[in-house]
Amino acid sequence: MKSTHVWRRPTLGAVAARAGVSTATVSNALNSTGRLSEATRQRVLAAARELGYAPASTARALAHGGSGVLGLTMTTYGDLPVPYTEIPYYAQLALGAMAAAHERGYMLMVMPSSLSPWMWLNTPMDGVIHVAPRAEDPVRSLLRERGIPMVSEGRPPQPRWGDAWVETDHEAGLRLLLDHLAEAGARRIGLSQPLHDDEYPGQVGRAYASWCAERDMPALVEEYASMPDYFTAERDAVSRLLHRDPRPDAVIGIYSDSGHNILAAARDHGLRVPRDLLVACISEDPDYAMTTPPVTTISLRPDRVSDEAVDLLIALINARSGVDRRRLVQPVLAPRRSTRRPVRQRNGAR
Amino acid sequence: MKSTHVWRRPTLGAVAARAGVSTATVSNALNSTGRLSEATRQRVLAAARELGYAPASTARALAHGGSGVLGLTMTTYGDLPVPYTEIPYYAQLALGAMAAAHERGYMLMVMPSSLSPWMWLNTPMDGVIHVAPRAEDPVRSLLRERGIPMVSEGRPPQPRWGDAWVETDHEAGLRLLLDHLAEAGARRIGLSQPLHDDEYPGQVGRAYASWCAERDMPALVEEYASMPDYFTAERDAVSRLLHRDPRPDAVIGIYSDSGHNILAAARDHGLRVPRDLLVACISEDPDYAMTTPPVTTISLRPDRVSDEAVDLLIALINARSGVDRRRLVQPVLAPRRSTRRPVRQRNGAR
Repeated sequence: MKSTHVWRRPTLGAVAARAGVSTATVSNALNSTGRLSEATRQRVLAAARELGYAPASTARALAHGGSGVLGLTMTTYGDLPVPYTEIPYYAQLALGAMAAAHERGYMLMVMPSSLSPWMWLNTPMDGVIHVAPRAEDPVRSLLRERGIPMVSEGRPPQPRWGDAWVETDHEAGLRLLLDHLAEAGARRIGLSQPLHDDEYPGQVGRAYASWCAERDMPALVEEYASMPDYFTAERDAVSRLLHRDPRPDAVIGIYSDSGHNILAAARDHGLRVPRDLLVACISEDPDYAMTTPPVTTISLRPDRVSDEAVDLLIALINARSGVDRRRLVQPVLAPRRSTRRPVRQRNGAR
Repeated sequence: MKSTHVWRRPTLGAVAARAGVSTATVSNALNSTGRLSEATRQRVLAAARELGYAPASTARALAHGGSGVLGLTMTTYGDLPVPYTEIPYYAQLALGAMAAAHERGYMLMVMPSSLSPWMWLNTPMDGVIHVAPRAEDPVRSLLRERGIPMVSEGRPPQPRWGDAWVETDHEAGLRLLLDHLAEAGARRIGLSQPLHDDEYPGQVGRAYASWCAERDMPALVEEYASMPDYFTAERDAVSRLLHRDPRPDAVIGIYSDSGHNILAAARDHGLRVPRDLLVACISEDPDYAMTTPPVTTISLRPDRVSDEAVDLLIALINARSGVDRRRLVQPVLAPRRSTRRPVRQRNGAR
């Protein structure tokens, strides 16, 4: 036993009595609904605080032995202790999950990316959001063994019946980007493609291949190893694309720093963006608004993904029926100067 | 008891034996030190993963009944369930704490801003980082009662002997900003000052007053209520400053949105920034690089604050002696166009 201290849960009625108002007023004050004077609201909040009243959702989570804790973990990098909070997509995902969990009365336990079975054995959690599952992911097996509800961010490589996940519609995102480039005049779009054992590169690669086939455009792909350092590896891959004859008139990348890597490779080849080459990538990095030139991006909407994931996880924890266990979030295009077709050229030449 | 499953900790030697290398090589592979081939490193990581080896810091945290969990909480807003992760300073603080905790083998439990005593009673934590403590803060009393090591972000209003905290040097930050404005030609600098029961507004206010006295400049202060909505309240306060005669030639604010609020009030008064009025604030909001005009800011370095706080908390948990329990982080000035002295005017007029 952690503590012999027993906490008696104060009721809404106790708060109402202490504040000298109705329970409806307490509810309005705590939920910011209805029309209340600021004085009344402050009186209710003071009474609730004095009594140690907790929001119903938290109380509910804890009522049946629940811990009130949701876990967030990521094992894409396996035993490499990657500071994933420094990657804008994951940083926003973590912040979004914090906000969504708190809004629903849960705490969020954020785990390191390196795997330590102790953590899972010693830490009470009602459910876990598992970010970017890999093939034969050890975290999935551990959670399954322990019967802990789990929602993946991103489809697992070998999904089973009953698996729950939230993911961005990568096919829609890639089509949005490719259509945008085609409208800007691109006819030979190169893809710089990482090799990694989560589902994301494959999903993007298939979407790219089928778009190219439909539009009767050449599929120009160069692959690179995503680990341990994709900066040099991707620059080399883009360089190989730019050596092709005829040269691509656009290059896209799918990782957060791809835009920087492609710009660097273009500079090495003496190419000007967007005049000689259009550039875009899938990223949440706000710096792309200030690069030279600013780079067009697709946002995967990590804020929406984390919100849906928390929502779905709490539904699973509460064993709600009729829950949609596979949810798609729509990506958004942020067009910037790196894909703006120069005005003078290409007039009738094609 | 949560689980009857007993996990036997694999040793460094067991990992070495399985990978067929020396323990020094295992250590190098896990800590990214020394010179190893990628193949060897991968073999060691695979062996460590198969055995469920945990980094020593995690193992150490858990060895003596520790939970391996650090808590992060904030009660500045009391029972108002504020999504503090949407405020850039707190978002960066939370992300920094995650990275720092993970780097040292700990998990980070992020708690909602509204207070629920259950959470504290049911959740095992080795220590807690308490953000922006208020006067008579209920969280401090709870943690003290339970004997949980605690580090505050920001000095508590009534510090006791032995209290531990990390804070930005607010006096240094304000002097940096005021000196910068004086160099840009400002002689009447107004301060828009929030009322709130943490220490921050008072620290800034005292630094402002003593700087003005030293420089023999007028102290021009307008106060506003920081709750429930400081947007309107601060715009009104700035408006009162701008109605003074003679008018201030610069206005500074100390909250994240103050720059936006001051720009809005200046527009209402038909003043152009920086020609008619210099504007600056204390904020981590990256948007100030793109406002019209871009606004000069002081950064409180939440990344450094959280790193120091995690470091200090782990020292307290391990009862290390000779630990510096009160740590200062130096703020940084980001000068932008809102405080650039216009070239033509003021030539000899003063």
